[in-house]
Amino acid sequence: MSASPLTVLALVDDPALQAAVDRWLAGQERYRLERCEPGQDPVAELERRGDSIDALLVQQGCLTPVQVQELSDRSLLLPAVVIGVMSGRVDLHEAEVHLPSDQLEQLSYNLDAAVSRFLARGSQGSLGNGAPVGDTALSDRWRLADRLQGRLGLAGVFYKRDPSRFLRNLSPGDASELLQSLQRTYRDYLIQYFRDPAAANQALESFVNTAFFSDLPITKTIEIHIDLIDAFAKQLKLEGHKGGFLQDYRLALLDVLAHLCEMYRRSMPPDLPMQKATSAS
Amino acid sequence: MSASPLTVLALVDDPALQAAVDRWLAGQERYRLERCEPGQDPVAELERRGDSIDALLVQQGCLTPVQVQELSDRSLLLPAVVIGVMSGRVDLHEAEVHLPSDQLEQLSYNLDAAVSRFLARGSQGSLGNGAPVGDTALSDRWRLADRLQGRLGLAGVFYKRDPSRFLRNLSPGDASELLQSLQRTYRDYLIQYFRDPAAANQALESFVNTAFFSDLPITKTIEIHIDLIDAFAKQLKLEGHKGGFLQDYRLALLDVLAHLCEMYRRSMPPDLPMQKATSAS
Repeated sequence: MSASPLTVLALVDDPALQAAVDRWLAGQERYRLERCEPGQDPVAELERRGDSIDALLVQQGCLTPVQVQELSDRSLLLPAVVIGVMSGRVDLHEAEVHLPSDQLEQLSYNLDAAVSRFLARGSQGSLGNGAPVGDTALSDRWRLADRLQGRLGLAGVFYKRDPSRFLRNLSPGDASELLQSLQRTYRDYLIQYFRDPAAANQALESFVNTAFFSDLPITKTIEIHIDLIDAFAKQLKLEGHKGGFLQDYRLALLDVLAHLCEMYRRSMPPDLPMQKATSAS
Repeated sequence: MSASPLTVLALVDDPALQAAVDRWLAGQERYRLERCEPGQDPVAELERRGDSIDALLVQQGCLTPVQVQELSDRSLLLPAVVIGVMSGRVDLHEAEVHLPSDQLEQLSYNLDAAVSRFLARGSQGSLGNGAPVGDTALSDRWRLADRLQGRLGLAGVFYKRDPSRFLRNLSPGDASELLQSLQRTYRDYLIQYFRDPAAANQALESFVNTAFFSDLPITKTIEIHIDLIDAFAKQLKLEGHKGGFLQDYRLALLDVLAHLCEMYRRSMPPDLPMQKATSAS
């Protein structure tokens, strides 16, 4: 079962962001990064490179709505991570994944998730940004799904996680950076939870993606929640407010656990039927 | 990958309970039921039958503490489901599973869980009811674990669920009975949650076992919780009480989701290391 690296095309204008992306994808065996230089037309570039590109990394705003429509029309939509503010908006298509620029430690896990989601949604024929899916576009998408699954090995990626990137297999420094990054994501999630459900949902998905692909123990998720709620409670007390309403944030943790649990459940390998019982023991 | 049925010895005195057990294990390909008749000495019987028995089904109170100690001394402790009141007490050993007699619809799933837990704990050397584990006993247990894993196929049972018993593959009548049974378990769990944590924990485990082995969608667990809390709230209102404290039961749902999620997480097949990236695409 061989797995060749997936080629990710970065559409990133900001040099500092590009440097951060380079840093967090350096040394990843699963991904090979290429760039679309600022000034190049991303649609033409994607058309020229054809099947050699497997996924996109898009700085928010680097693609105009017209360009996104062109990509959609030409069946050039690929698995995508959008880097930018969690606004709740769909930038390319419904299977895209969002990550703020201060949480790029989680980039490789969210690329895994972007490919998984794309494969899963593609197989249900529910990709695209609202436009009706023609037969040609659908067959193009199947071809892409086939190609991705071929590169990733037989089983597809949906439960094919990379153990070298599991939290417990990271160096202490990398593990600590990843946990801090997860804390920032969870903090964004809590802050948006009652304020902007669509934005909160993007943060939730990014947290759950990283938790799943880094094999984060469930107790760690609960710790991150409790630590943040404790910090909020202290802050409120200092400011002379009551923090009783913080209990309502248990709903936020319930949402995270339910999503994560369903993700694990759907990632279980298909169970083969039990063989008919024989008389021998 | 062949799987021969596991032989379960029932130590059940009550004829009505025995009839219910017969009913809920009838037609199960994974389990073959045998009985230790009332009046027979269970210790002698287990010794006589030796390796032919794989698991126990014990009516609470059918084994005296002295008999349990004898079984432990002779390394005859097996995966076990204890049928009776959820008291929080350990009857045989720490890997046992508890199920009340009005919830036997879940018996086969909890037998799966009893075997899984026994294999998992056995491999950590943490079985036994507190007594120090001698080398002989440990090697006996390893032999049993080997035998069980041999009968169940290569991978062991920890994530080898039987899809024919998944909720979605049951007849509508069986599915409805299973859901009602799960509701009774969850109700017991809520009632004990703040009153008797040890008893609540046994109910939680039985619920989570059935949810896992029946591949219950996560949303169904949440529905069961919400429906019960709504029913409690109505009841309290009728009685003229306030139901605000019912929000505290979100903690109970958090516990269930966290346990279930961790069970799924640990049941993921071992992820193979990614192969070194090659230059070909």
